[in-house]
Amino acid sequence: MAARHKKPNDMTAGDFRPPVRIGRKTGPKPTFTEADVIVAALRLGIGEFTLTQIAQKIGVATSAVYRIFDSRDDLVRACVDYCARRLQWQIMPGTTWEQALRSWAERVWEVCETYKGMDAQLFLHPGVFLPTQHSLTRMIDLLVRAGLDRRVATLVFDFVTETVVATHLGVSTTQSLFNADAAERRKQAGFLDADDPTVIPRGRITNDTYELIDDPEEYAAAIKDAQFHTPDQQPRLAREALDVKLDLIMVAVRKVAAESTDAT
Amino acid sequence: MAARHKKPNDMTAGDFRPPVRIGRKTGPKPTFTEADVIVAALRLGIGEFTLTQIAQKIGVATSAVYRIFDSRDDLVRACVDYCARRLQWQIMPGTTWEQALRSWAERVWEVCETYKGMDAQLFLHPGVFLPTQHSLTRMIDLLVRAGLDRRVATLVFDFVTETVVATHLGVSTTQSLFNADAAERRKQAGFLDADDPTVIPRGRITNDTYELIDDPEEYAAAIKDAQFHTPDQQPRLAREALDVKLDLIMVAVRKVAAESTDAT
Repeated sequence: MAARHKKPNDMTAGDFRPPVRIGRKTGPKPTFTEADVIVAALRLGIGEFTLTQIAQKIGVATSAVYRIFDSRDDLVRACVDYCARRLQWQIMPGTTWEQALRSWAERVWEVCETYKGMDAQLFLHPGVFLPTQHSLTRMIDLLVRAGLDRRVATLVFDFVTETVVATHLGVSTTQSLFNADAAERRKQAGFLDADDPTVIPRGRITNDTYELIDDPEEYAAAIKDAQFHTPDQQPRLAREALDVKLDLIMVAVRKVAAESTDAT
Repeated sequence: MAARHKKPNDMTAGDFRPPVRIGRKTGPKPTFTEADVIVAALRLGIGEFTLTQIAQKIGVATSAVYRIFDSRDDLVRACVDYCARRLQWQIMPGTTWEQALRSWAERVWEVCETYKGMDAQLFLHPGVFLPTQHSLTRMIDLLVRAGLDRRVATLVFDFVTETVVATHLGVSTTQSLFNADAAERRKQAGFLDADDPTVIPRGRITNDTYELIDDPEEYAAAIKDAQFHTPDQQPRLAREALDVKLDLIMVAVRKVAAESTDAT
């Protein structure tokens, strides 16, 4: 299963190999690039695409796609690399640690929002954040200068990244319950209200606020109510949840930094 | 693909269906239960087992396993349910919110440590924490009594859970780099030192402490050094990382709770 095309180690964004000519020897020759395949896979959803669907989308034979990528796994890895390059960023001079952390969180969130299924992949592929090594180092310096222990500073960056990806993954997993064959899976997942596609567990929206229903009887009564949140409202709620969690991290970092500054 | 055996909705721990008799009509009749299959799958690793391996482990024919579980997916779900029931817990009277959160974190960590590959599944299966609904409600009450807004209190529980699972997943993903065909994957992941099986990126162990190497030259020099952490040391480091992150959450909750108490 060795890759037929060797990737140069220092491949950067946009640095794809030249178009490959495929198909019959006569007539117009359709050409397509590795990038075309990657973009098609990302549009179809990294957790769902098949090589046949991709070939149809680009308008070539499936065998032609196999000439570039040996397997689905190879293509998944190329898609993850593509997104990892999107995560490259620079911390501008004068940026505070808080601004830098928040802008990093936005970047990761945006990649999760843009590329369906990428949240799970970011957890499953080690080394995916290596292209950000340079900015990571600068970020840690900012946190150390603010008063944090270097080891804690390193973990704060990981903590923010994991929190963004985990929050996104939590939402997309819940949203998958609203898909076509959702009722059966919702039933299996133990939802009280498997047949009502507008209900998600544990809470509801009232006057635009998420509200936990913790009394079982109230919960049972409430599922007859129409005011549950729908898939459309989910992403906004997830964003709210993320903001609360990021705020908590900021509060903790500020407090720990202030205490260490007081101590000196 | 309807399940051939219907599971009662109120199935609880240890509540498995009676032994199924399989095999030839004569001679000793091997019997095995759904629980035997689940335990075998969990031992082999939920991300890796095949139904054939399981059949071998139990000492029955593969077709007999298919008589209980229609597909690999069905069995994965049963394994996740099994672990979810292990997560059931009770908050004892007199427990503080901090003790309760930490004991919950320990429970989730223990399940991740005990069942290989379960960390990823906990993210991918919605509703997995539903059996903990009752304790969740009590936990939120404790946090609200401490001074937290109810919405924030709800998110703190999610935050702790996600942090435990994400930290474990981060480590197991990195550890997978040390597996049999690791060198090629490490190379693909962009590691500087793909041929040295004892190196992981970004840091090293010196005198039992994890140390980030942020200077590229120092890093390049350091990879010639023998003192990198090995797979054996990884779990302890992960645990340290988790403890720092949990401490940060506790610091933030205490601060937010204290501020709201001051305001009243």
